[in-house]
This record gives sequence, C-alpha cells and structure tokens, in this order.
Amino acid sequence: MSDKKHVLIMGGDARYIHVINLLADTDIHLYLIGFDHLSFEKSNIKHTELENTNLSLLDAIILPVGGTDEKGKVEVTYSDKALFLTEQIISCTPEHCTIYTGTANHYLQHICTATKRTLVKIFERDDVAIYNSIPTAEGTLKLAMNATDETIHNANVCILGFGRVGKTVTRLFDAVGANVTVVARNQADIARITEMGLTAVKLQNLNTVINEMAICINTIPHPVIDEELLSNMSSSIVIIDLASKPGGVDFSFAKKEGIQAIHALGLPGKTAPKTAGKIIASVLLETMNVSALSV
Amino acid sequence: MSDKKHVLIMGGDARYIHVINLLADTDIHLYLIGFDHLSFEKSNIKHTELENTNLSLLDAIILPVGGTDEKGKVEVTYSDKALFLTEQIISCTPEHCTIYTGTANHYLQHICTATKRTLVKIFERDDVAIYNSIPTAEGTLKLAMNATDETIHNANVCILGFGRVGKTVTRLFDAVGANVTVVARNQADIARITEMGLTAVKLQNLNTVINEMAICINTIPHPVIDEELLSNMSSSIVIIDLASKPGGVDFSFAKKEGIQAIHALGLPGKTAPKTAGKIIASVLLETMNVSALSV
Repeated sequence: MSDKKHVLIMGGDARYIHVINLLADTDIHLYLIGFDHLSFEKSNIKHTELENTNLSLLDAIILPVGGTDEKGKVEVTYSDKALFLTEQIISCTPEHCTIYTGTANHYLQHICTATKRTLVKIFERDDVAIYNSIPTAEGTLKLAMNATDETIHNANVCILGFGRVGKTVTRLFDAVGANVTVVARNQADIARITEMGLTAVKLQNLNTVINEMAICINTIPHPVIDEELLSNMSSSIVIIDLASKPGGVDFSFAKKEGIQAIHALGLPGKTAPKTAGKIIASVLLETMNVSALSV
Repeated sequence: MSDKKHVLIMGGDARYIHVINLLADTDIHLYLIGFDHLSFEKSNIKHTELENTNLSLLDAIILPVGGTDEKGKVEVTYSDKALFLTEQIISCTPEHCTIYTGTANHYLQHICTATKRTLVKIFERDDVAIYNSIPTAEGTLKLAMNATDETIHNANVCILGFGRVGKTVTRLFDAVGANVTVVARNQADIARITEMGLTAVKLQNLNTVINEMAICINTIPHPVIDEELLSNMSSSIVIIDLASKPGGVDFSFAKKEGIQAIHALGLPGKTAPKTAGKIIASVLLETMNVSALSV
C-alpha cells in the first residue's frame, strides 16, 4: 500500500495557484475541484468533480482561506460551478481526514465537530499571521502611496494597534522614512515603540495629535475611529482600516465629513498572491508532515 | 516704488498647482498663463494671457520642468490654448528678468543667450536632484509592487548605478527588506555599498548573477541592459528603467524575449505631485531670494 497522501483542494483564489504548484512538488496525489478554468502540467494533479471523487481515499481537504459561508458554499474563482461542503461529504472521508482552512465560521466548525474530523485553521497560527503581515504591510504602503499626493517619506503617519500586523506596518512605514506615531495600550508595547525611536501615544490621547496626521492606519478590531476622532482630523487625511469586518472606523460618518477611508481586506492575496500562496503552502506541508521533493 | 516681485508662470503640470499655492504665500505678484481650467483664491494671483501681460514688469518667468520643445512650445496641462515662448517675448522683459526651468534644450538656451537673460535650470542642482530622488524611489517601489506577485521583502533586486537616484533607490529597497545588489564602477561606491551591508558587483560581472534577480532597476543613462544581459535574465524579471530618454534598456529586444520592461519617467510628478511641487517652490523661493510670509 502506498503511503503517499491524497489531498483534495476545494476552491480558492489566485493564492491557490501557487499552493497547488508547491504541493505538486511533493509526492502528494492532488485532486482539484473549482479550478476547471486552469490547467496544470504535473502528473500528480487531477481535476475532478465531487461526484467522481473517491472521498474514502482522502487524507486531507484544503478549503479556501475563508472556509465556507454559513450555507456551506465554498469560494470558487476558477470555475463557473457552485461548490458546497456538507456534513455528508465529510462523513464519506476516512476518520483521520483533516480539514484545512484559513478561518472557520459556525457552519464549518459544526460539520467538522459533528463528523469528528480535525479542523485546522491555519490563519490562527501566530507564525502565519506574522508572515502574512508582510504582504499586508506592503499592500498598505501601496494604498497609502496611491491615495496621497505627497511622499510617504516625511509624512506624519499614525498606526493604531501594535499587534502582529501593527508591528510590521510600523516597521515598514518607519523604514520608508515616515514620521510614525503608534497608538498602544500595553506599557511594554509603549516601551518597545519608544525603544524603536518612534512616538507612542495612548488611545485616549490620540485626539490631541490626530489633526497633524496625513495617514492613519488602523489594526484594532473595535470601533476606535469614532465621530469624535474623525471630527478632529484634517479632511485631507487618508484612513486605511486593516481590521476585519466590520472594521474599526465609523465609515458613514467619515463619508459625511468627506474623509477618505479605505477598508482594506485580504491584502496579501491582492498584493502578493505568490508570496501569500507560499506562506499557505509551507504551513500546509509542515502540518501534513510532507517535504518538498528534492529535484 | 514697490519692491514686490512680479513673476509669470507659463504652463506646467499638477506639481505647479502646489508651486503656485506656495509662491502665493509670499508677497510676489503672480501671473498665470496656461491655468484657465483652474481657479485660485488668493488676491496676488492673476490669470492672464500673453497679449494682456505687461512683460516689462516681470522679474522672472517660470517655465514647466521640461522647459520648451524645439519650436518653443510650452507644456500646458490646465488650458486648451497652445503656448509658445519666443525670443521676441523674452526681449520685452527687463534685462534682469530671469527665466526658470527644470531642464533646457537648445532652443531655450539659444533664446536666453540671444536676449542676454539668465536661464536657471533648477533640475541641474545637486540638492534638487537628491530631493527629487525621494519621490522617484517611492514611485519605483510602487511600480515594482504593482508588477510583481511577490512581496518586495526578500525579493532579489539589482540596482544599476549609485548616483543621486541610485543611492536613494538602494536605501529604500534595502529598508523594505529586499536583497539588494548594486552595480557600481567606482571603488569608493563599492566600498560604500559594502559598508551598507549590501552586495556590490561590477557591471561586467552582472551577467553571472542576473538570472537570480526578480527586479532590475536601472539608473545609468547608457545602453547597459543589452541583448547579452537580457538573454541571461529570467523571463519573469521586471525591469524598471529610470534613465532619461532613450533609457538604458534595449526595449525592443526585451519585448522579443517577453521580458516586462517599464521606462518610468517623471515619477516625482506622477507619484507625489505635491511633494515635487514643494521641492520646486522651495528652490525657486531660495533662488529668487523671497521668504514665505509669516502668517
């Protein structure tokens, strides 16, 4: 009996082209659903449909980074056919079959629990979040350059939050020569920001300096950029909100004030799909305990 | 008699909106030709036409950064009317009237020499070239991010030339986390590149490493990226040529090889017109010996 793994990739966006290519560089048997607009040359890649797939062979199912929606629908970029993941489909896989996703909603959690299959949410891993913060920060820089008519060099930039994304965005804008102010709560973070030669402010004091800012980048997943803060901003400011939906900005009040506010989501896939695909592939290979073939 | 200066701005692009606003913050009497699509609120700004302008009052004429073409035509962005600068027009100005331009061709040099008027080419100044290299480098970074599907972070980037622009581009790409290799000739430059922790190579040795590069940025105004070098490049490389026309790349051979080569000119005005306008305004004010009014 062969110990080569059988892995089904169900749907995905531009990042998954690179995931497929990298996974195909191993001895995995790769089955693809949702990629019939594309063709791949490697012999261990097979396009298929759910009804033609021997699910009992599968060691793993890889879902798009968003998992499924609340009805089980799987995001498909390279096919016209709708695709659903159901409890019934999962129950046809062997008990050891693992479901990989970026994030998971209640539906996906539920069908995995009900079928007693392991669900691995790779975007919850610290290392993945840090690696992904690199294309996120570069995408943010690109948005900032597009939205302003001055250089980022010497611009006053405030960054809200000093977590995994906030730290990378801070380092990048500082490296490019912006005057960076970071909003943090934690005393250790404030010490670190100061050690980096940057200005740290507490959220409650942001109001006193916000009018000097040309660019404001939020990473805090709470409604921090509210009417009061927006009222004190220059109308020429550019706000880039990186916090997941619904974000941290009162977008309707910003619009009323004529302030440009961009809710920038999924930047790694948009800015650098190949890098983002490499990040996903490398954590998948590590978790599945598969090594790339030496060529 | 008032000692306030009378300055005519003839044509110009988005940068000149900021030049006009900054010059209007002084006590200069400002006359504009070629901006009739725009309106400015300040009282010392007057839209005019050549035939209605008392040229004998003028202390200075400010031309677009490109000066004139070989027939004396002046680039106009915010008007539908064609505009020409002639020897006859200049001869109607006082002898002390100075003509300011970014660069000058033979025609412009000739009409200034013939009329014995001082011609100041501000883009020939070292400081202006260095200040302008900042938006140039940021524009280059933006082009590189748009043209690649990987992050600049950890990308192999080679930069040809270590002059005023090459140095800034080198520092920016290094700051963003690229693996930077710089092509230089001069032994002191090679020492400096090494001191910066980067890899220095001589042009004749570039061939041996060019196949590893993801991005190649040229600042050398000679045909350095030739058939031989292009033949050794990966077809996925992105070439950004910053050298003035005709550039340093064999563009037709690059096209034949399917290599993406971008001739990127005038980046400061495209990327950061406000910053570029500030740079121009500040050197104009300094050269004309005018201070911004204190408010």
